Amino acid sequence: MSAIRYEHIKTCKQSGARLGRIHTPHGVIDTPIFMPVGTQATVKSMTPEELKEINAKIILSNTYHLYMRPGHELVEKAGGLHKFMNWDRAILTDSGGFQVFSLGPLRKITEEGVEFRSHLDGSKHFISPEKAIEIENALGADIIMAFDECAPYPASRDYVKNSLERTTRWAKRCKDAHKYPDRQGLFGIVQGGMYKDLREQSAYEIMELDFPGYAVGGLSVGEPKPLMYEVLEYTTPLLPKDKPRYLMGVGSPDALIEGVIRGIDMFDCVLPTRIARNGTAMTSHGKVVVRNAKYAEDFLPLDPECSCYTCRNYSRAYIRHLVKANEILGARLITYHNLYFLLKLMENVRQAIREDRLLDFRREFFTKYGYEL
Amino acid sequence: MSAIRYEHIKTCKQSGARLGRIHTPHGVIDTPIFMPVGTQATVKSMTPEELKEINAKIILSNTYHLYMRPGHELVEKAGGLHKFMNWDRAILTDSGGFQVFSLGPLRKITEEGVEFRSHLDGSKHFISPEKAIEIENALGADIIMAFDECAPYPASRDYVKNSLERTTRWAKRCKDAHKYPDRQGLFGIVQGGMYKDLREQSAYEIMELDFPGYAVGGLSVGEPKPLMYEVLEYTTPLLPKDKPRYLMGVGSPDALIEGVIRGIDMFDCVLPTRIARNGTAMTSHGKVVVRNAKYAEDFLPLDPECSCYTCRNYSRAYIRHLVKANEILGARLITYHNLYFLLKLMENVRQAIREDRLLDFRREFFTKYGYEL
Ligand SMILES: [Zn+2]
Ligand SMILES: [Zn+2]
Repeated sequence: MSAIRYEHIKTCKQSGARLGRIHTPHGVIDTPIFMPVGTQATVKSMTPEELKEINAKIILSNTYHLYMRPGHELVEKAGGLHKFMNWDRAILTDSGGFQVFSLGPLRKITEEGVEFRSHLDGSKHFISPEKAIEIENALGADIIMAFDECAPYPASRDYVKNSLERTTRWAKRCKDAHKYPDRQGLFGIVQGGMYKDLREQSAYEIMELDFPGYAVGGLSVGEPKPLMYEVLEYTTPLLPKDKPRYLMGVGSPDALIEGVIRGIDMFDCVLPTRIARNGTAMTSHGKVVVRNAKYAEDFLPLDPECSCYTCRNYSRAYIRHLVKANEILGARLITYHNLYFLLKLMENVRQAIREDRLLDFRREFFTKYGYEL
Repeated sequence: MSAIRYEHIKTCKQSGARLGRIHTPHGVIDTPIFMPVGTQATVKSMTPEELKEINAKIILSNTYHLYMRPGHELVEKAGGLHKFMNWDRAILTDSGGFQVFSLGPLRKITEEGVEFRSHLDGSKHFISPEKAIEIENALGADIIMAFDECAPYPASRDYVKNSLERTTRWAKRCKDAHKYPDRQGLFGIVQGGMYKDLREQSAYEIMELDFPGYAVGGLSVGEPKPLMYEVLEYTTPLLPKDKPRYLMGVGSPDALIEGVIRGIDMFDCVLPTRIARNGTAMTSHGKVVVRNAKYAEDFLPLDPECSCYTCRNYSRAYIRHLVKANEILGARLITYHNLYFLLKLMENVRQAIREDRLLDFRREFFTKYGYEL
């Protein structure tokens, strides 16, 4: 019995987008959903209670970072990641593969796994598919990801083909190593770069292993957005209808809507939290770079149409002051708003699917947001 | 009619400490009280709601910093400091004098006022008693402080005498410049260094100006604690019984208790918030430097006897991880605990006064805290 079950509710007649629910050991998640990222066992600047206030149902944490610090054994001793960080809703952990491959000259890939040096202290480490799953088992997230190789963009056909075939072999090893399939759902990852036939090859090979969910990996790695949408258009239809589909590393409002229209159920991205700490808010009328001088005497909220805690209580002028003065509260208030904004957007997207009008919603949203279709 | 009124409730039969209430335009404050410091119009890392959760009734903000950034005119345009920062309880602003005098070679003192260069951009500024009050009037705090000269420690008798006499002349100018005595209570500051006769001279000169409250300034500037207590012992008895007494810049648990025993009603200090951001918690058993390795696998709360949000939900091991990983939540959780701890301590102090047993309480507290009497 799998830890994760997808329940399909309906398909938008106008767009083909899916409305559903993911059942996890830590609650039910309405999809499509955006997952805030808590890299180091904390969604930067937020408490779990605040995440609940903005209706977050699942967050993502990074295996590589937790393996490095504080170490997965410590987290296991603490009773697992949920207990360690005081979060009793669902968690997804990535496999660490993406981070390890991003280390560039610091890492060496073999069939067995990846050897690399820590970004913290330069110490030498080796992560194999078995090791990645051992770490993810210790962390104890509800959804865990297979250890894959994410090809860069651009990459040659040969490189991508080798890489996806290794990803398949590694996916099999991950499945075999997984100790708790009834408590943690292991998702497979489809690779194949920007090559249609390779995406097909990867999808069929990965699906053959029968995972309770599938991610589309290797996108949002620097390619133009239209190309990402094109790859999604031919990749998601290959995936089974009764399993959740996760597009990794995507979190701009336009890409979330476009992804949903192309059949995606789950997204994650550091974007909303990262730009918040830099003084930028996502609003219904586009980005507001609140640290800019033009907001110095602007006593409107970040987004006059938003009803979040930040927008109900604070002005752009005050938040700008906090950001300029390097005050923690500035990062807190904008992070809170940005995550609220994206989770509210996904709620509106779900409502539009329910009403068979997601394409209309997209047009309305983009017009206001100031984004060209 | 003064904006500030002190109501004396009782005197502890065992210690002579005072229990009272300060009535302000933004609520009633039970004294003795500790005031969290919100230098830049924010108590670092805390929301106003969190300050209310831990029962803060009054906070302090710094005139010098707000004058520099974002500027008092902006705060006035925003509707005053309360509205700007979303805090509807009482606020006290210092005069900026202490910060300006701390600039050392960057400043020049004359009878008219102080010329100095900004710590932010080196720009030239001049603050006179009139200017300080103009800024404090614009900020709109409930209690505002006179612009004084705080002598360093050690300082010669001549230096201190000149300085306290100028402080008296400046106090008179502050009183004359104050535009809203019915909305903001202006407190006078007693100087006089570590010289008993000069403290007496200063107290009588300042009291002659009849302020609604008095601060003991020029302490906690580097002198040994026993010397500070000695100065308090001969200074506070000089002050009127029907006005609040404020000891500036004191916030260690032992000095709070000792100050109350010597007749002080109000305290402020950056200590609890500053050491929090550095990974140190104040607990009933003394300081816990949670970033130390010995807490790596310690799953107890910061203070097992504390019932604050942090201690109810998080372990030392988790908080240590956050601090080591430079996560904002680490600073938040420890700041929350430290302020809760000090405000709870003051609540316990008030209860001990009510029960005429503050000396017993001091002994019990210090024994547990690991502090020599
Ligand atoms: Zn908002
Ligand atoms: Zn606590």
